[in-house]
Amino acid sequence: MQQRRICIVVTNRASYARIRTVLQAVNSDPRMELQLVLSASMVLHHYGNAEEVVRADGFVPAASVHCVVEGEIPATMAKTTGLAIIELSSIFERLKPDIVLTVADRFETMATAIAASYMNIPLAHTQGGEITGSIDESVRHAITKLAHLHFPATAQAGRNVIAMGEPAASVHVTGCPSIDNLFGIELGPLDQDFMASHGVGGTVDTGEPYLLVMQHSVTTEFSQAAAQTDATLRAVANFGLPAIWLWPNMDAGSDAIAKHVRHFHETTGHGKFHFFRNMPVDEFARLMKNCACMVGNSSAALREGAYLGTPVVNIGSRQASRERGENVLDAEHQSTAIETAITRQVDHGPYPEDQIFGDGQAGRRIADLLATAQVTVQKRLTFPD
Amino acid sequence: MQQRRICIVVTNRASYARIRTVLQAVNSDPRMELQLVLSASMVLHHYGNAEEVVRADGFVPAASVHCVVEGEIPATMAKTTGLAIIELSSIFERLKPDIVLTVADRFETMATAIAASYMNIPLAHTQGGEITGSIDESVRHAITKLAHLHFPATAQAGRNVIAMGEPAASVHVTGCPSIDNLFGIELGPLDQDFMASHGVGGTVDTGEPYLLVMQHSVTTEFSQAAAQTDATLRAVANFGLPAIWLWPNMDAGSDAIAKHVRHFHETTGHGKFHFFRNMPVDEFARLMKNCACMVGNSSAALREGAYLGTPVVNIGSRQASRERGENVLDAEHQSTAIETAITRQVDHGPYPEDQIFGDGQAGRRIADLLATAQVTVQKRLTFPD
Amino acid sequence: MQQRRICIVVTNRASYARIRTVLQAVNSDPRMELQLVLSASMVLHHYGNAEEVVRADGFVPAASVHCVVEGEIPATMAKTTGLAIIELSSIFERLKPDIVLTVADRFETMATAIAASYMNIPLAHTQGGEITGSIDESVRHAITKLAHLHFPATAQAGRNVIAMGEPAASVHVTGCPSIDNLFGIELGPLDQDFMASHGVGGTVDTGEPYLLVMQHSVTTEFSQAAAQTDATLRAVANFGLPAIWLWPNMDAGSDAIAKHVRHFHETTGHGKFHFFRNMPVDEFARLMKNCACMVGNSSAALREGAYLGTPVVNIGSRQASRERGENVLDAEHQSTAIETAITRQVDHGPYPEDQIFGDGQAGRRIADLLATAQVTVQKRLTFPD
Amino acid sequence: MQQRRICIVVTNRASYARIRTVLQAVNSDPRMELQLVLSASMVLHHYGNAEEVVRADGFVPAASVHCVVEGEIPATMAKTTGLAIIELSSIFERLKPDIVLTVADRFETMATAIAASYMNIPLAHTQGGEITGSIDESVRHAITKLAHLHFPATAQAGRNVIAMGEPAASVHVTGCPSIDNLFGIELGPLDQDFMASHGVGGTVDTGEPYLLVMQHSVTTEFSQAAAQTDATLRAVANFGLPAIWLWPNMDAGSDAIAKHVRHFHETTGHGKFHFFRNMPVDEFARLMKNCACMVGNSSAALREGAYLGTPVVNIGSRQASRERGENVLDAEHQSTAIETAITRQVDHGPYPEDQIFGDGQAGRRIADLLATAQVTVQKRLTFPD
Repeated sequence: MQQRRICIVVTNRASYARIRTVLQAVNSDPRMELQLVLSASMVLHHYGNAEEVVRADGFVPAASVHCVVEGEIPATMAKTTGLAIIELSSIFERLKPDIVLTVADRFETMATAIAASYMNIPLAHTQGGEITGSIDESVRHAITKLAHLHFPATAQAGRNVIAMGEPAASVHVTGCPSIDNLFGIELGPLDQDFMASHGVGGTVDTGEPYLLVMQHSVTTEFSQAAAQTDATLRAVANFGLPAIWLWPNMDAGSDAIAKHVRHFHETTGHGKFHFFRNMPVDEFARLMKNCACMVGNSSAALREGAYLGTPVVNIGSRQASRERGENVLDAEHQSTAIETAITRQVDHGPYPEDQIFGDGQAGRRIADLLATAQVTVQKRLTFPD
Repeated sequence: MQQRRICIVVTNRASYARIRTVLQAVNSDPRMELQLVLSASMVLHHYGNAEEVVRADGFVPAASVHCVVEGEIPATMAKTTGLAIIELSSIFERLKPDIVLTVADRFETMATAIAASYMNIPLAHTQGGEITGSIDESVRHAITKLAHLHFPATAQAGRNVIAMGEPAASVHVTGCPSIDNLFGIELGPLDQDFMASHGVGGTVDTGEPYLLVMQHSVTTEFSQAAAQTDATLRAVANFGLPAIWLWPNMDAGSDAIAKHVRHFHETTGHGKFHFFRNMPVDEFARLMKNCACMVGNSSAALREGAYLGTPVVNIGSRQASRERGENVLDAEHQSTAIETAITRQVDHGPYPEDQIFGDGQAGRRIADLLATAQVTVQKRLTFPD
Repeated sequence: MQQRRICIVVTNRASYARIRTVLQAVNSDPRMELQLVLSASMVLHHYGNAEEVVRADGFVPAASVHCVVEGEIPATMAKTTGLAIIELSSIFERLKPDIVLTVADRFETMATAIAASYMNIPLAHTQGGEITGSIDESVRHAITKLAHLHFPATAQAGRNVIAMGEPAASVHVTGCPSIDNLFGIELGPLDQDFMASHGVGGTVDTGEPYLLVMQHSVTTEFSQAAAQTDATLRAVANFGLPAIWLWPNMDAGSDAIAKHVRHFHETTGHGKFHFFRNMPVDEFARLMKNCACMVGNSSAALREGAYLGTPVVNIGSRQASRERGENVLDAEHQSTAIETAITRQVDHGPYPEDQIFGDGQAGRRIADLLATAQVTVQKRLTFPD
Repeated sequence: MQQRRICIVVTNRASYARIRTVLQAVNSDPRMELQLVLSASMVLHHYGNAEEVVRADGFVPAASVHCVVEGEIPATMAKTTGLAIIELSSIFERLKPDIVLTVADRFETMATAIAASYMNIPLAHTQGGEITGSIDESVRHAITKLAHLHFPATAQAGRNVIAMGEPAASVHVTGCPSIDNLFGIELGPLDQDFMASHGVGGTVDTGEPYLLVMQHSVTTEFSQAAAQTDATLRAVANFGLPAIWLWPNMDAGSDAIAKHVRHFHETTGHGKFHFFRNMPVDEFARLMKNCACMVGNSSAALREGAYLGTPVVNIGSRQASRERGENVLDAEHQSTAIETAITRQVDHGPYPEDQIFGDGQAGRRIADLLATAQVTVQKRLTFPD
């Protein structure tokens, strides 16, 4: 029997974590041939050597795409997407995949969706049907309307995809593969050797209470990126615990965020802050599991955080309306509000495990569907009766 | 008061006809400044000199975009879209529109939608919510998920847009501006002088019965384009009436269609067939009004055809599921089936006027909404209770 | 021993003819692996199915590039080049050639030269050092300044390359591979079956006297393309012999030329003119060998024409200053001047063979140099003492 | 009389300094309209806000181009150039310049040259005819072969341009506009306030002896960028004087350089090193005038350094063969060799002024030529008898 060629396009390190168990399951399944394509910030060296990371995980990339147009303003997000379409269409012509899979909702994933659907290649999509803010919200649902096979993470997300007019037979609630990563790993404190050899800034003792901060740009509030970052910086500095910061994704506005964080790093808090650009999935899980509170607007705080029981302060509109567990407390982009919320969450301590975003089997389920699902390329809007 | 800058991107001649009355209404409204951008096949000379046409209608283009990557295969549809995003994002940076409007569902309109929405410019969209085949179906609904202001043509289409999760307050059923063109024009036979000076092939006496043929590629059935064209060519040749052919849109597969039609033109039927590449809106309306039957898979056959009462044989899946009036008879891509359907429609003769796609006021309504509608750029999936 | 990977990028049918014997010699040489890349108009179907042609000649393309931006105005020549650079740099990253070879001087060959030289891949170049008009003149010499290995066709061209500051050791006068094609083929009249099954228009009896016309756009005189074509059309029509026309290259202005020729075809001279879009190398050689006179501004008229002894009327500036044999008579873009020159050349009849552009061994010589030449990527302007 | 539209494309901060007096002279000349286009790294915020800088100098940009494809590997240098061609051709279509001027030899200036020359816009070029290493060498001479008007800086460079086959009438030795900047400014030590408010790292007392370091990537030795940087870092650290570092240009390899310098900054020498990303022309001149020795491979060291009498240690091949004054001492990329050369130059102290690269009138001369020169677009290789 002919193997199905499954092409999976990964555009940044966070997305890689969210699809890794699918890559593993496809790669080890004799019914399929994995075609891994690395694109956008995934191939940029200041985000670490992605090729090394994926090879260490046992994958051999079928293609790499340089398509990031510098600027980190809204216009360059669009240009990056345009350039990615041009490059990916050549790659799909060469690889001739039977199915292309795109991950979640970063702006540049739209390029994967357009290239595949325009070329009559069935498109699969993970994490559809969720509700959030930023341009991600528009991107996610537009991709759903281009996709032929849907792998939403939660039951509610699955219902949303169907409600938008997708045939129920094409919608499979699988859980989120990012949760798979958390099963079977040791969740003690971060290895101090890792901190010594990675990132910059002071050394934070992760055996003692610390904050974990991860704040991305809200592209639709682009002009407020600097002010929003200031509020968080002030709140974290005032609260007084040492803090570990993770660098923001590359989006319109991330330049402004990075500039503020870097300035803060160089003028204040040298001793108390440590900065990582990115890190392995396992180390990240350990950081989340053991922090006193996770602060910012990362979706990981809601997603992996639910399972890990991490106390979370979720700031602003980026995750507004997204499903979440008990572990999340919202705050506005306002310094004292953030600090008050941090206090409440640190006082509360860890929350119980919640499997709302998955039971650890998503990768295996998605791979099985990729191997067996019937797919057609002609879509047709279909509402449930 | 500051004028709103309304940027309308037109990508081909058919789309121009479908937005012309909006252009007129915006252009003559003191509350707004019209920024007309010509793109894709609209600027290609073998589709006629678009700049002359729009200037004759009183418009001055603010920018022209060359973005069509030759090939007319699925991969070049994607590349054209990618290149258009790169170019349009520069244009939007320069023109700084308050609202961008994109027309309907051709593949390259996605470029307008992505550039605008990624750049936090509110996006308006005409003809959303309709159901058809081809890649248009996916494009149309994906644009709906990127758009902030919806101008569906019919009540049913409006309900579909809301059902997909768009806030009802952003959805305005306006009718289709293409119908506006049919009001107040004289609908007698095509001027014979026009035929003598335009197009190629034999002279068809439009005072006598003739067929009108317009068959586009179905991009999702790309590989069958040649066979599908053959079936129509044979049916029309067998039926025996003289025929006027309109050239297909530029899509994946249109090259194959054009090649077959051109070969037929050069080997057979020189006397009985006349070919037009494109034509003014008014002449096209006269051709539709007075033909014995319109054959093919054009949406104009359903849309303008409903109002004009044109007997239509609609072939294949391209318009499947689209709303239609009584005037449409479906046929498969099979020669005798098409011929039988033509016979039935020619015997039936003209149908009564049906205003399902509009009452002639769409342009005025849309312009008024563009001048006054409240718009925000952050979307959020919202289902009716 | 490791095979050298030799990547040869071919951008149109004429260039293919000019490099075919190099492709053959590289392909059959165990010291090298041929990486054939098809690009630009070479992959466009209305120029014939290139892939079939190259496979029939025994080559398997390593990649195909769709990069032609439609419009055929000067701006789209630039855009096509830009898009080709983007695509070719990805291809070179994948194929990792040891040497890239680019052919002659068409505008889009600059993309090959830039991608290779910027990526530190040694660049080889055929047909450098010749002197002509059009943008080709600038392109040819700019590529010389990017190239590391030069294969000029004539001794004079070789001297010119060295005079421009290229190290003499990198310059190898090889003859032009286009001449290789003419050795060992039968040069009788064109097979009438070929005419019956290819091209359009009347049947020209190639056993009787006929004209052969091939007129390209002069990009630097872009706005005069239509008038220049008219002059030739009128002269050829007045002269009265049946004529075989070959379609122009795709350049800025070729659209205007094609439109005029097509209009002429449809209004006049149906019986006496036959049109080919492109043709196999052998058939083309037979057409040139047996015509009463070749008219236009094609470089083949000077190049292959010298060897074949074809009487040539060379019009305008496109070939001005190019080396030529006795067989060429110049004329301005003026109808009676062209007709007068045709009369003189038809009266003169065939010229003796002239090997100025090669002795039939160019392909073999170039392949041998590609296999053995020492190459470095750092250039340095070096004038002979 | 109609003003000539002079479009000048500036792609980075160093190029801006090298063309500023031309911009001023054109801008204030009633015979011309200045069209300033900012492109490539000139518009990137981590190189400072260019728009503010040019506005402070009295210029209003006519367009800005985001075209830098991230990666800083050879392939992305090519892609950046391709994208710039696509964008610039649209800009030239809109601005319709009478002459386009491109500056010197950075890789992305080729995009300006191709877009203009392909569009039949006369191209002017500064700093042609010089001899160096890196890809700049190839780029510089290829642009000469595309350009119609040449403004070399030195008499020798002018002779080289003519020797390459350019008509002597098109070659005007003007001096380099970068030298103009040095006339009439105060050349005392750098203002300490400037250091306090710009850049990062320790405070260097510029009233005391200090080194100035500026080392760019040699693109043709891309893989050795890290090792080459290490040699310089070790030599400078060993020598012991405090040092001011200027960030490298954005080229293939600059990522590796930046990473090494940043790592050094974070692990060693905090107190003794100060880093600037870029700086105003005047401050830069003061830094060069007053340093004990300038170390690296910047062309400014040779060019402005000749006039300022700066003792220079020039490392490696990047400036090999470039004309230079007495002030330059060469060293290999080897730590002790560099340290030895620094010692010699510091011991020597300042050199006398040398006007080899200009007399301060270049901007005025170039502007006058732009206003008056006869230009044609058809080139033709012309060797002096």
